[in-house]
Amino acid sequence: MGAVRTKRKPRAVREQQMLDAAVQLFGQRGYMAASMDEIAERAGVSKPLVYLYLNSKEDLFGACIRREATALTEAVRSKVRPDMPAERQLWEGLRAFFTHTAQHPEGWTVLHRQAHTQGEPFAAEVAAVRAEFIAFVAQLILAAARDRAAPCARGDGGPGERHVPALPEHEATGLAEALVGAAESLAAWANATPGVTAHQAAATLMNFAWAGLGNLMEGRAWSPSAA
Amino acid sequence: MGAVRTKRKPRAVREQQMLDAAVQLFGQRGYMAASMDEIAERAGVSKPLVYLYLNSKEDLFGACIRREATALTEAVRSKVRPDMPAERQLWEGLRAFFTHTAQHPEGWTVLHRQAHTQGEPFAAEVAAVRAEFIAFVAQLILAAARDRAAPCARGDGGPGERHVPALPEHEATGLAEALVGAAESLAAWANATPGVTAHQAAATLMNFAWAGLGNLMEGRAWSPSAA
Repeated sequence: MGAVRTKRKPRAVREQQMLDAAVQLFGQRGYMAASMDEIAERAGVSKPLVYLYLNSKEDLFGACIRREATALTEAVRSKVRPDMPAERQLWEGLRAFFTHTAQHPEGWTVLHRQAHTQGEPFAAEVAAVRAEFIAFVAQLILAAARDRAAPCARGDGGPGERHVPALPEHEATGLAEALVGAAESLAAWANATPGVTAHQAAATLMNFAWAGLGNLMEGRAWSPSAA
Repeated sequence: MGAVRTKRKPRAVREQQMLDAAVQLFGQRGYMAASMDEIAERAGVSKPLVYLYLNSKEDLFGACIRREATALTEAVRSKVRPDMPAERQLWEGLRAFFTHTAQHPEGWTVLHRQAHTQGEPFAAEVAAVRAEFIAFVAQLILAAARDRAAPCARGDGGPGERHVPALPEHEATGLAEALVGAAESLAAWANATPGVTAHQAAATLMNFAWAGLGNLMEGRAWSPSAA
């Protein structure tokens, strides 16, 4: 009895091993080509145990998506503190994003590519996480715009504390869509391109984004007539 | 004989009707859910004729991807003339991109989402078109950077006509990846958001991108120490 017990690992540990193996294989080969036999073998467990714990290949795939999405979201949020200036929040968030996707390339492939290939409910789960990210980035952009607009608005003798923000909310959402799309594209490129570090990818996007956003927040919008 | 002939349309016309119907149904329902029966019905032809002309559902899907990719590429390239200033090329290219994706929402869904769901060879075909787009945008960014760097470099008494560009080539590729990723994300958002016009989406991205790129090209890179 004692010998058997020392060989046994807690269920939570086994499950993480299964998810580790599954994310690797799904990411490298795609959902269809990854077999439950191979996932069990790589996890060092029996195939019946994988089915016992995670029910089916579909459920295992769903568990992978949820785990990778949560890990990515937490990696970014843990580095972005609301008391930082917006510019620093954006930089820390981008660095955390590119560091995490570089350290977990298969996890990123599962989220960015594989999740869409198996239709619902997986595509909807990833879309929900993405929508949360975009709302988070849009709030960050709006907060930055408010910070910059505030000194003038408060100094002009207006009737109250509230002032008209320099940036309309739907414009902030559009900018957040652009920024998140750019980050997704760059993460896949950085992972596929030898020699591109997470820091470089983050700096490229910060360079691309910040001066543009910064100008917008100062009310200096680009105009077609200038081109 | 004469009556039969007047009813007949040329093969090329019939094929375009089949592709029109297929793109609509693939874009609206996805590859799996779109049936050949429905495609034939919507195209106003018999199902055997669809198979005779396009061989299989897979081949029909491939033909849709190629037609939509070619149409999008041509729509953008036709508006971007090399004699324009880089800023104008970028603006015209973005306007053409968002106008085309707004006018062909199902075609865009097929390219952006559906093509990845059926694995190879479709994902590879779309990836090849995307790589061409990115190379095109990277060249545009490099040309703009050279234009801006040239006056100083030529005035400093260097040994020849050639000068060190302000922007390294791999950095231009990274920026092009970011810009194309941002455009893809915004196009899907604009199509899904009532009231967002192609012009607005193009202006949002131009605002986001140009001031940032413009600063880079003037040698004013963003630096982490500033945040």
